[in-house]
Amino acid sequence: MAKDVNPPRGMRDFLPVEKLQREQVLARIRSTYRLHGFQEVETPALEDLAKLTSGQGGDNEKLAYRVLKRGAELDEALATGDPGELADIGLRFDLTVPLTRYYATNRSQLLPVFKAIQTGPVWRAERPQKGRYRQFVQCDIDIIGDSSTLAEIDLLVSSLDALDALGLQDAVIRVNHRALLNASLESMGVKPADQPLAMIIVDKLDKLGADGVVAEMAERLGQQAADNLAVWLKSINGELDVPQELAGIFDAVGSRFNDRLRYDPTLVRGMGYYTGPIFEIEHPGSGSSIGGGGRYDAMVGRWLGTDVPAVGISLGFERVVDLVDAAKFSLQPNTAVLILENDAPKTLANALERQRELQEFGTVVRLENRSKKLSNLLDELHKHGFEKFASVDELTETFEALNLRDIG
Amino acid sequence: MAKDVNPPRGMRDFLPVEKLQREQVLARIRSTYRLHGFQEVETPALEDLAKLTSGQGGDNEKLAYRVLKRGAELDEALATGDPGELADIGLRFDLTVPLTRYYATNRSQLLPVFKAIQTGPVWRAERPQKGRYRQFVQCDIDIIGDSSTLAEIDLLVSSLDALDALGLQDAVIRVNHRALLNASLESMGVKPADQPLAMIIVDKLDKLGADGVVAEMAERLGQQAADNLAVWLKSINGELDVPQELAGIFDAVGSRFNDRLRYDPTLVRGMGYYTGPIFEIEHPGSGSSIGGGGRYDAMVGRWLGTDVPAVGISLGFERVVDLVDAAKFSLQPNTAVLILENDAPKTLANALERQRELQEFGTVVRLENRSKKLSNLLDELHKHGFEKFASVDELTETFEALNLRDIG
Repeated sequence: MAKDVNPPRGMRDFLPVEKLQREQVLARIRSTYRLHGFQEVETPALEDLAKLTSGQGGDNEKLAYRVLKRGAELDEALATGDPGELADIGLRFDLTVPLTRYYATNRSQLLPVFKAIQTGPVWRAERPQKGRYRQFVQCDIDIIGDSSTLAEIDLLVSSLDALDALGLQDAVIRVNHRALLNASLESMGVKPADQPLAMIIVDKLDKLGADGVVAEMAERLGQQAADNLAVWLKSINGELDVPQELAGIFDAVGSRFNDRLRYDPTLVRGMGYYTGPIFEIEHPGSGSSIGGGGRYDAMVGRWLGTDVPAVGISLGFERVVDLVDAAKFSLQPNTAVLILENDAPKTLANALERQRELQEFGTVVRLENRSKKLSNLLDELHKHGFEKFASVDELTETFEALNLRDIG
Repeated sequence: MAKDVNPPRGMRDFLPVEKLQREQVLARIRSTYRLHGFQEVETPALEDLAKLTSGQGGDNEKLAYRVLKRGAELDEALATGDPGELADIGLRFDLTVPLTRYYATNRSQLLPVFKAIQTGPVWRAERPQKGRYRQFVQCDIDIIGDSSTLAEIDLLVSSLDALDALGLQDAVIRVNHRALLNASLESMGVKPADQPLAMIIVDKLDKLGADGVVAEMAERLGQQAADNLAVWLKSINGELDVPQELAGIFDAVGSRFNDRLRYDPTLVRGMGYYTGPIFEIEHPGSGSSIGGGGRYDAMVGRWLGTDVPAVGISLGFERVVDLVDAAKFSLQPNTAVLILENDAPKTLANALERQRELQEFGTVVRLENRSKKLSNLLDELHKHGFEKFASVDELTETFEALNLRDIG
């Protein structure tokens, strides 16, 4: 009897045509980043739960999938009656927390300025909704060990190069600086202790609009702060001069990519760990951001006991795939099907030898039994991307004897 | 304060040089399989636990990592007091069980004879030991929907082609047929109901030797069966004729690959789901098998309610990586480092422009601040694979002005 055969809720299978496109997009991103001198690394999908939920991952920590203990350890955990004891490891919810752990583990074997590429799935137990998945791919580049703005410039130039290689020349990166944001809040009379809350409120500008965030500010942090926020929001309408803290970055990136950075004093970025410049990548074809990042100088220190400067940008692969022109990223090599007219040993040997010869020209060669009406078979093969075919039997003893014809 | 910063027990980080090698080996395997007309697909890392542990995965089911339920569902599960209720999804322990589920889900959108490539990590909660990991990569090809031996021939030829592309021409594939194994056991007087147990005993031949398995046979299934087993084991020493059931496969594969299949009447393969030919890949450089597979005609039917013929081979990627000549699979493109002599805007712009020009020739170009003694910096960069360098300042305004020199 047929059973429910779906993947788990919020997770996806990929058909051959989808997988082909995803792999080609991913290959383009990876090769662009490699050309900029970044090196690929890999961490396990799982980390010790204590490391995943040590407060560095912000709200995402709550979304971590936790893995049940096993054997005697599970029995012991059950005996305690404490549900918090049941799990010992968890699936990573981003690539940044594992990277900081990786750097602390492997530091002595890495370049002092470590430029990392990480691409891979992450998992979040989110409520499934359109465009949100419980397993999705992130593409991160990070520079650890460089406190100069060369790191930001390197990341932004590499990201724009990757986006352009994907045909996404309309992508722009909004840039702000946490110190500027803090200074603005300070000038509105928001005390340092209240600034994290104020940032969460300002971060809702896209959703709530200016009136909405001013109202929430009044409710949570008083009328005076709200009035000051309203004045500030009005003052930053229109074209803005890039502040001195970001001018070097804008100049250098602008020398390679004209008008692709935008200073946005209201950009917040959710994560609490940012300490300097922050970025968010936008594209007119996407309703939400397609990537983001920033400087997080204090995070590696949590493992090492000594601060190490770090900055990173993450591309949201799923949104990028949705944006690219599928036709440009479903390139197939030449494809042919050899139809075996019978299963005589000589026919099989001929088919394998002709396959090998065609493969030497880079052609993908599929072997197929003549199992049904040829026209139906060819229709199906054509629908799945195969372009040419030839029949093979006992007489197809040479490459010249192969009569390769177009399908359809 | 520094903390324990290791990955979870039995799991690994990969350094840049290791990751590079792994990706190159994987790319070679994937491109070889694609040239044989197999198509890449992908399933989620997680499956519903009921599907993972429905008896198709054999002993591996017990090794599945189970993921704790979340929110209200976890509360409900805790209230039942039944530990079996705590988890709802689990990490895949192989790629075969998910593939059969995938086929059932997506069948209408796949070719009637579906030739799949799957490469990716699987997870098993095994006791960590040398060469055994709790996260490791498998590379599978499967053909679903073809009951003819063309499927076995296609898989074996593609596998040998992939192994040769990796320089593993010494790999051979041992072949047996479950029906032959059953008939042999029948002729020893082992009843069908006892044959699965008898197979588990015979499977220990490598470990226990002939005397050992005969002794265990006597203990578990009686002296008569043990005596017959001893006679049988003696009879199959030395060169054996390939039985008629496998002759077509040996002839066809032999026409492309001379003497790379070996008939082994004692080959069992652990999994219960095999129904026809079975394979195990060996290489003199590895103490254990580096891959295996077989025909499993009844497995897809568990989801669909109707049997679909299927056969697959899995390469153990970790063992393959250990065997390949690392030097051949750590190929770097040209690499250069541009040393920025200062952070003047003109210097930064020059560096970015020279980087772009070099990248157009396919050169990997890393930007680096002149942060310490040049000779120390160059030593470190050389150790990490960078071959050339040039200094950049305000005057490096053209490609011709770049003085690219060898490091070291």
